[in-house]
This record gives sequence, C-alpha cells and structure tokens, in this order.
Amino acid sequence: MAVPGTDSLAPLLEAGSVAIVGASADPLKIGGRPVEYLRRFGYRGRIVPVNPNRNEVQGIPCLPRLTRADAIDVAIIAAPVPGANEAVHQCLEAGCKAIILFSAGYAELDQAGAHSQRALASAAAAAGAVLLGPNCLGVINAHTRLVASFTTALESIELPCGSFSYLGQSGALGAYWMEKAVSAGLGISKWITTGNEAQVTVAEALAYLAVDPQTRLIGAYIEDIKRPELFRRAAQAAQAAGKTILAIKSGRSATGQRAVCAHTGAQAGDDATYQSLLRDCGIARVATLTEMIDVARLVLSEPPLSKSRRLGVVTVSGGAGALICDAADDVGLSVPELSAADMTRLSEILPKFVRCQNPIDVTGAVVSDTSLMTSVLETLAKSGSCDVIVLFLGLMGSIKEQLLAAVAHVRPLGKPLVLIWMGAPPDARRAVQALGVPLFDEIPPALASLAKAGLLA
Amino acid sequence: MAVPGTDSLAPLLEAGSVAIVGASADPLKIGGRPVEYLRRFGYRGRIVPVNPNRNEVQGIPCLPRLTRADAIDVAIIAAPVPGANEAVHQCLEAGCKAIILFSAGYAELDQAGAHSQRALASAAAAAGAVLLGPNCLGVINAHTRLVASFTTALESIELPCGSFSYLGQSGALGAYWMEKAVSAGLGISKWITTGNEAQVTVAEALAYLAVDPQTRLIGAYIEDIKRPELFRRAAQAAQAAGKTILAIKSGRSATGQRAVCAHTGAQAGDDATYQSLLRDCGIARVATLTEMIDVARLVLSEPPLSKSRRLGVVTVSGGAGALICDAADDVGLSVPELSAADMTRLSEILPKFVRCQNPIDVTGAVVSDTSLMTSVLETLAKSGSCDVIVLFLGLMGSIKEQLLAAVAHVRPLGKPLVLIWMGAPPDARRAVQALGVPLFDEIPPALASLAKAGLLA
Repeated sequence: MAVPGTDSLAPLLEAGSVAIVGASADPLKIGGRPVEYLRRFGYRGRIVPVNPNRNEVQGIPCLPRLTRADAIDVAIIAAPVPGANEAVHQCLEAGCKAIILFSAGYAELDQAGAHSQRALASAAAAAGAVLLGPNCLGVINAHTRLVASFTTALESIELPCGSFSYLGQSGALGAYWMEKAVSAGLGISKWITTGNEAQVTVAEALAYLAVDPQTRLIGAYIEDIKRPELFRRAAQAAQAAGKTILAIKSGRSATGQRAVCAHTGAQAGDDATYQSLLRDCGIARVATLTEMIDVARLVLSEPPLSKSRRLGVVTVSGGAGALICDAADDVGLSVPELSAADMTRLSEILPKFVRCQNPIDVTGAVVSDTSLMTSVLETLAKSGSCDVIVLFLGLMGSIKEQLLAAVAHVRPLGKPLVLIWMGAPPDARRAVQALGVPLFDEIPPALASLAKAGLLA
Repeated sequence: MAVPGTDSLAPLLEAGSVAIVGASADPLKIGGRPVEYLRRFGYRGRIVPVNPNRNEVQGIPCLPRLTRADAIDVAIIAAPVPGANEAVHQCLEAGCKAIILFSAGYAELDQAGAHSQRALASAAAAAGAVLLGPNCLGVINAHTRLVASFTTALESIELPCGSFSYLGQSGALGAYWMEKAVSAGLGISKWITTGNEAQVTVAEALAYLAVDPQTRLIGAYIEDIKRPELFRRAAQAAQAAGKTILAIKSGRSATGQRAVCAHTGAQAGDDATYQSLLRDCGIARVATLTEMIDVARLVLSEPPLSKSRRLGVVTVSGGAGALICDAADDVGLSVPELSAADMTRLSEILPKFVRCQNPIDVTGAVVSDTSLMTSVLETLAKSGSCDVIVLFLGLMGSIKEQLLAAVAHVRPLGKPLVLIWMGAPPDARRAVQALGVPLFDEIPPALASLAKAGLLA
C-alpha cells in the first residue's frame, strides 16, 4: 500500500521499457553507458535508443525520436542543456510515464537554470509524469536489472540482488555506497538519486522504498528535505514495515551548506532541526558511508543482534582487550563479569599464567595450541552471561586456518559474533565474509556499529 | 646527550651480541623465532643460542649455558616460569648488560608472581643490568637489524629502515603498529615493548628515543606511567630535539582499567590526570593505531605541512565536497573563498554548467576531459588563498592514469596535497603511495589527521 500523499515511483523503478534519448555508440559516454549497462546486466524490459543521426546504437535499432506508438515507460535524457529541455517536452508528448534528466546546469547553477527547472516540473506534472532530476544519476532496480544510470560504479562491480536500497541527492556518493556495499558482501535492491529534485524528492523516494517488498534496509544521503511531512509519514511507514533507515545528513556547517547549494541548489537549513526530525522518524544518523555500511552489515547479519548490550570479549592481546573495554564503554556496551560456571570452565581451558576474566586474553599461547580458541569461543557461545561475542585477532597468518575453523565451529550455536582482525591476510578476509561473520579491522568502529545496530534491533 | 635521571637503554638497543636462552630449532616456537629473525633480517652482531640439550640451533653453534667469557650484551630469556627466574640469575652472573624476559605469569597474574618480579628487578639493579619485561615482546632496532623479539608481525612483513619508533607495554599492539606502519610506506627505527615493567618503563623507553638520532617520530601505547616526572623530562627532551610524539592511552573506562591490570599489572589511574600530563608534555593523543598511522603519514610527508589551516578542495562529487566542508569545520580547518584571480582562472577551466567556488566540483565532466583536473590542481598549487590541497576522487578506474598524472604534475610545485580516494583501484593505491602522497579512503579521518598533524607542524 502506497504512502498517502505521494504518487508512486513505480512507473520509474518498475519500468517495462526504457528509451535513451541522446544514445551514444560509445559505451563510455554519458549517452552510451545506460545502453551498455542495460544490456550487460540483462535488463528484462525493452531498450530503445533514440538518436536522429544513427540507425543503431551498440547493436540495438535506434529511433530518430519517440512517439506515442512506442509506448515507452521511462525516458532517459542524456543530452546537455538547452537541448535537454526540448527532449523532455518531446518525451512528455510521446506519453512517457517517467523521465530521468541527467543534465546539469539548472537550479544549482543560476536563476535562469532555476526557472528552466520549474518549467520542466510544471510540464511533467501537467502530463501526469514522474520527473527525476535534473542533475542526477538516475535509478537502478537490481531485481529487474534496470540500470537507468551512467554511474561509473558499474564499470568494475557486479550488481548482486539483495534487500539494501539507497536514496539521496548525490549520485556520486550513491556510487561509492554501491561499491562499498557490494565489497562488504551486501546485495542491492533499489538505488534512487534525486539530484536537484525538480519534482521527485528524497521524501517520495523514501515513500516508495517504505512499501517496496524487496527493500529491508535503506541508506540515505540527504542534503535537504523539501517535504518534511511526507518524509515523516514515509519513515513511519518504513518503521511499521519493520525496515531500518540509516542516514547521512550533510550541510552541518556554514561552508557545507554553501557547498550543498552549489551542488543541487539545496538549502541545507539548521542542523538541529534536521537532527530532531531524523530522531523523531526513528532514523539512525551516521557520519560516513563507511559507518553506514558497517551498521548495515550488522543489521543484516545472521543470527540477528538482540537489543541486549553484554559482550563476551576474546582477544589475543591484552592491550587490545583494554581498548575494546574503553570503546565499549564509550558507546554504552558492557563487558560484564562472567558467571562462576563460565569462569570455572575457562580456567580449565586457559594457560595457567593467564588471569581468567572478561575480556578473555588467550595470549600468544594460542599459536602453539589453537584448540584453546575453539574451547573459549564455545564456552562463550553457550554462556548465559553475554549476548554477543567480540573476537579480536591480529596478524597470525600462520594459524589462520585454525582460527577460521574455530569461528566456523561456533557459528551454528546461534550467538551473534563480530570479528575484529587487524592486519588479516586477504584470503582470511574473504573466508570470514563467506562465513557470514561481520569483519572489522579497527576497534572503535566495530563497537560503535555494534551499539548502533543493537539499538535498531 | 642522555635524559638526566635514567640509565640509557643503549646496552639493549645497540647490542653487539645477543644470546637466546632456551633457543629452539623450530623457527615458529617462541625460543626459535628470535634466532630465525636475527638471521633472516641480517643482524650485524653475534648470535649465540643457549640450550643444554643441543649442539646447534638453526645452523648456529649452541652453548649449554652462558659464562662471563662469552661477553654477551643482551640475553633473551624464552623459557617459561619458574625456569625463567633461574635463567635470569645465570645471565646476570655471566655479566650480560641487558636481559629481555619474554615469560608471562608474574605481576599480571597474582601476588606470588609480583613477588618474583620484584626479586628479579632487584637482582638486575644490583648487577647494574637493564631488565626488560617480563611478559614483553622484546625490542627491535631496524637499523642494526637487531630483532630481539618473537613477534608474529615479522612472519609476513619486511623491516624497512626509517625514523618512526614504537614504545609501549603491549607487544601485540606493537606488532599491529608495525604492520600498519610498513603497509603505509613508513620506515621503522626502534621498537620497544615493556610488558610488566619490572625495571624499564615507558618513561625510560621515551628517554632513550628522545635522544636517539635515528628517531624523528614516536608512537606510544600507554597503560600506565610509573615514573611521571621522568616521562615528562623525556617528552621535553624529545620536543627540544624537534620530535613528535603520538600516544594511545588505554584504561579510560573502569572495565578498561580492570583489563590493563590483568594484562601487565598496570594501574591505569584517573584518565583526566593522564590527559593533563600528555597535554602538558605536548603529546598528541590518538584513539587508535589507525589514527596514529594516519597522523604519522602526514607528519612525515613532504613537503611539510604548515600550521596554516586553509584548504583548497577539489572533488568529483558535490556531495563529497559538502561532507568535506562539514568534516573540516568539525576539526577547525577552513575551506575559504578563493581570490578573485583564482576564481577568474577557474571559471576559464571549469565547464559552463558548474558554479565556481571552493570546494571546486569538477563533476563527472572530468571523465571526458581529464585535463580539467590538471588545470584545476595547478591553479590551487599556485594560489595564495590556500595552504593545503585536498583532492577527493571516487572509483573512476577508467581514467586512473590521467588522474595520477595530474597529481604527479603538481607535486613539484611544493604545496602539500592530501588525496581521499574512495574505492580506489589497488594499483592506483600503490601508485599514489609511490608518489609520496598521503592517501585516505574516507573523509573525516583524513580531515581529523590533517588538523592534528597541522597542529604538530
């Protein structure tokens, strides 16, 4: 069920046909990339290049211009201004249900650009069409393989399907988001970049994702929110559907506000007001894309995190154990004393020269007896004294297989486990990811993400 | 000139001969690793394995026990307690000038261990010998190739010479420090792990490094400071010699204090007191090893950073530009308006649809015209309106050579440049490191490190 007060973005994201106006034979040009991506990723709908100077583009027959008979759902406008304006009007006349306007040089540039942008929005509204942009990087639906974008992110990465969606004014940050998400082993659902927001704003994008059955987690990059009430209703709908929203809000500083205005013409406004709005909406604010992906990995990890905050910490370094305690304390997580039964069991396992307490330091002794690690992790996995295991490793390439086996051994026992491995060998990183265990390479980000994801659980 | 009030650690770090008591034929065992490392890294002094059960160890003739006639500078004790105690006494009788005690199970474990530890310290003092440890990972002098340690860090990394030194109670964190420093392209000078600090504490280690001509930058991991007045004098000596000290202080929280006590028997004490001491000493406190290495890269970079705080920012993403402004504002760096002359020049270079201001967004237009980047960077490098260039890139593997060439082009112009490249291709990372340009993959850590390193300039 759609969020009240908004036209759905379904015509855009669930399009059965896509025209590329200004299609280029060069797959590296802005007008060539969407054609190449749609083909390469296997878009399930019809691809229609439009270019009066060509009969075919990248092997696909090309039209000189669109007409109603072509029955196109989405038209991508890849031409520069002022030709772009004329192209939008032609596409509206041809009955396109949605238009994606890549071109820059509108409200973000000057008053004349702002005027043109308003005129296009009025024309789209009069035609009952969705207008995305201008000055945007388009949309992606990983499930239907609709790549209506010229983002360079897809030069090098695949597009795995999943339940993580992006929305934001910035297409470039969306590209980095995608690269980071995919590198972290997360699958993508929808990707919506709104640019100057002549018509579709982040609020409409959120409203769509709130009710999209293929989206469970939403990452947002926000410069401004032009329709706060709609945004609030959309966030409530997302919460009601059990979805989590993580958001970066830029323009906190005066220079940052000047920068967002130059970027998309957005008025970032007072940060405290935004902070309240995001908090009221149950949205977790994050500072960076790195943090967003870190929290996302934990939110989507299995077994799910509980809201409980008690950590059982295992380390190969007493110093690291101390730093983990400090970092846990900073974010409201506890490293409690363990039960008498756990202590008895651990004292049987650990070397005689180790003081037995939480954090549990297995010391370098683990190098000569790796079974120590398996036994300690198993004790914590079965313990009632902690809810999450935090395992700290460093280097130790010579016993990586045994350490990975110890982690694999306790996974089926069903207790969430987070691994911090400083200087992990690259193949060990891949093996950890394959085990579905969230991996970090530094202490405070791991604990901060764990705390944030736990609050969202 | 030595810092008054301390015996120098020269006998330890400038040893001409090293005995390994409890030497093992197995290069993966604690008693075998130092032998293997000393040989492999080409120690310039004499290597003497000691083991009553063997004639040779790893191809080197082996002694049953040490005597005065062997004239050994440093004895490494790799035996477990209680044999370790007897070994220390034998080495003192044999006239060793310094003893490194790896073994654990002393003050960090229980009262009996604390008693043994005090007895060893008294014996060493009576003999006029330096005692490092117990429960430590020893020392390294990269310049003489003295690796008196069993750290697993050296399994996989080389030991490049340089001017960056480590001191700290924790050997494991020292190992991660070394891996991170070397991965970041930094060269190592000295590495001192003090463990339980029966005699040598972080203060003596700092006093040595303060006057060591091969050390310019010191990274410290501190659980407690047992001799604060000596530490203060040592820090002053380091400052007077133009050296920079970066320190992690653990045990900020109650659980962290419990953890450091279990680790090395240290009493972490009130954090506010330590915070004042570190500030009074002119020491920059960092939260993590990652931050320590980030700041170190900037402190050691060429051309040197000035204390001035004006950034010229170039991005390929307006969103990233806004986030850079926010992050700069958080740490007291400015992104000022540029001079009229700079603006005129930039408006000639940038595409017509771009609003010309700092941060300068070259937009995706750089993909089709990479000369844009060279011209913009050159303008900033010659500008009097900014002191440091911050360049933001993201992905863009298809034009990486041109982007790297643009960076290389402006390096000789002598203005510090920091590069933030999200999702950089691995070969581009290596190329940036080869250019000597500090590289980051996220925005706030880059700006925070820049601010911290600028304050230290």
